[in-house]
Amino acid sequence: MRALRWDGSRLALARDLPPPTPAPGDALVRVALAGICRTDVEITRGYLDFRGTLGHEWVGHVLAAGDARLVGRRVVGDINLACGRCPLCAADLGRHCPTRRVLGIVGADGAFADLIVVPERNLHLVPDGIPDTAAVFTEPLAAAFEILDQVAAVSGARTVVLGAGKLGLLVAQVLVSAGADVVLAARHPAQWARAERLGLASGAPQPGADLVVDATGSVDGLRLALALVRPRGSVVLKTTIAGEHRLDLSSAVVNEITLVGSRCGRFPPALDALAAGRLAVEPLIDAIVPLDEGIGAFDRAAAAGALKILLDARDA
Amino acid sequence: MRALRWDGSRLALARDLPPPTPAPGDALVRVALAGICRTDVEITRGYLDFRGTLGHEWVGHVLAAGDARLVGRRVVGDINLACGRCPLCAADLGRHCPTRRVLGIVGADGAFADLIVVPERNLHLVPDGIPDTAAVFTEPLAAAFEILDQVAAVSGARTVVLGAGKLGLLVAQVLVSAGADVVLAARHPAQWARAERLGLASGAPQPGADLVVDATGSVDGLRLALALVRPRGSVVLKTTIAGEHRLDLSSAVVNEITLVGSRCGRFPPALDALAAGRLAVEPLIDAIVPLDEGIGAFDRAAAAGALKILLDARDA
Repeated sequence: MRALRWDGSRLALARDLPPPTPAPGDALVRVALAGICRTDVEITRGYLDFRGTLGHEWVGHVLAAGDARLVGRRVVGDINLACGRCPLCAADLGRHCPTRRVLGIVGADGAFADLIVVPERNLHLVPDGIPDTAAVFTEPLAAAFEILDQVAAVSGARTVVLGAGKLGLLVAQVLVSAGADVVLAARHPAQWARAERLGLASGAPQPGADLVVDATGSVDGLRLALALVRPRGSVVLKTTIAGEHRLDLSSAVVNEITLVGSRCGRFPPALDALAAGRLAVEPLIDAIVPLDEGIGAFDRAAAAGALKILLDARDA
Repeated sequence: MRALRWDGSRLALARDLPPPTPAPGDALVRVALAGICRTDVEITRGYLDFRGTLGHEWVGHVLAAGDARLVGRRVVGDINLACGRCPLCAADLGRHCPTRRVLGIVGADGAFADLIVVPERNLHLVPDGIPDTAAVFTEPLAAAFEILDQVAAVSGARTVVLGAGKLGLLVAQVLVSAGADVVLAARHPAQWARAERLGLASGAPQPGADLVVDATGSVDGLRLALALVRPRGSVVLKTTIAGEHRLDLSSAVVNEITLVGSRCGRFPPALDALAAGRLAVEPLIDAIVPLDEGIGAFDRAAAAGALKILLDARDA
């Protein structure tokens, strides 16, 4: 089978890999589409020191599984491969299992490949009405919905989303769907136009926001967020960066700001929203590229201003 | 009257100042005791660029007020002098009024003096059972109780309090009173003994805490807090420091930590706890020093390991 692999210094498309071997409880999944995420690009710059097949946003069909009802079904899957036995797993927080592997990110081969192995318990069936090109957004959309699990009183909140990239556009839509009054901070005409097509208000953000989401992917995002949020307001941190923040947090103390770190989310709210057509994810697709051309697709995904590049393995 | 004043370069005891003049709605208060806080010491090192009479922890008697029922009563008072008209004031958050002055900290003379002027609406009557030497802790104790207004699920939480100084000892007691399982992080035998006298568990903190309070007053406190808190746990920031934090916040994102900035609190819960004798504040007193000896008292309060130094103006 094919797989787009990172060896620590070079990205290469392997063509004749043996298929992966499912362990008991695992499903073997035939990948249809997989999305390139900012994290994938960061990994090829050294983030998390990962080696192996990249890719954690995907949709595919189950080829083999212990649970016969899964075979042939179209699925997406939680990327955190948890132990299932620790206190965090018992609290339904396998996403925080301390010994977890993470598909295509930590210790487990990912989805830029023809075949992947995923624990059956991680899988979610994709309703028929959701095309592959939307279902492949389930994972990043779940990360956007995670904010609703973490922040109370989103409805009616004067909200600023910092970062007009892929994640910012998903987060802004999710918060609008939850009743927030959202301004997407955007500086470039291309970003304004894109926001408008998605029905999002955009422009220069004003101070005094109840809620600010930092989806900038930059060390400067938090500093700006603290300048925009009102006293007793909340800042959601969606940016994972290897670099150090250098900032004076005394304003966060004096103004009693709540900073909420936010990462992966539950899949069902994302699938429900996609099934109901409440959110527009397909306008975020810049290109659908055959897996065979994955290396060039990666360069394209890494370019400034790029939106989602999907790798298509349905040609195999 | 006497007042201990900071002119930007020197602390001096003025002896023949005219009494302050109350505006309509203000009370004139005769100060009994006032506590020296870490913030006062920081101001004499340049923090917030304050000029005037220091002091914001106090208890005294009302000499004159528009509301005749206040005259002669023993009172403490909220230190935030708010406009009373803005949206934050309307939401009972005058502590965050954007145009507030703060007694002895921002734009208003403080309580290291024989007389102070305080808006009547800021005053709280002190129940008879609370001695002056306990009532003078109302303000810092309210700041400790503020955590209970901000963090849900304190009861039963495995909690670490970082910082075995005055604020840490108050915070630890408040959290114990709310049912938390608290370890006060302490490194020195003198701190262990002091914690034990207050009925607090102390020692080297273990990772995996549900809740960590940074009351260290150091830029390193947050870094340590992030190392101790469990995934999805909370860190309360009680440290205001002028210096920049330099830290990698990606662990806060990956582990979905909630960071809660926390400053001043409501007075009633603190007064209720003091009236009920639920907390021990008087063991935190290192010395009670006549106001006339205020300059030496300041040096003593600034020394490493010092607990509370009270200035006594009852001799006037």
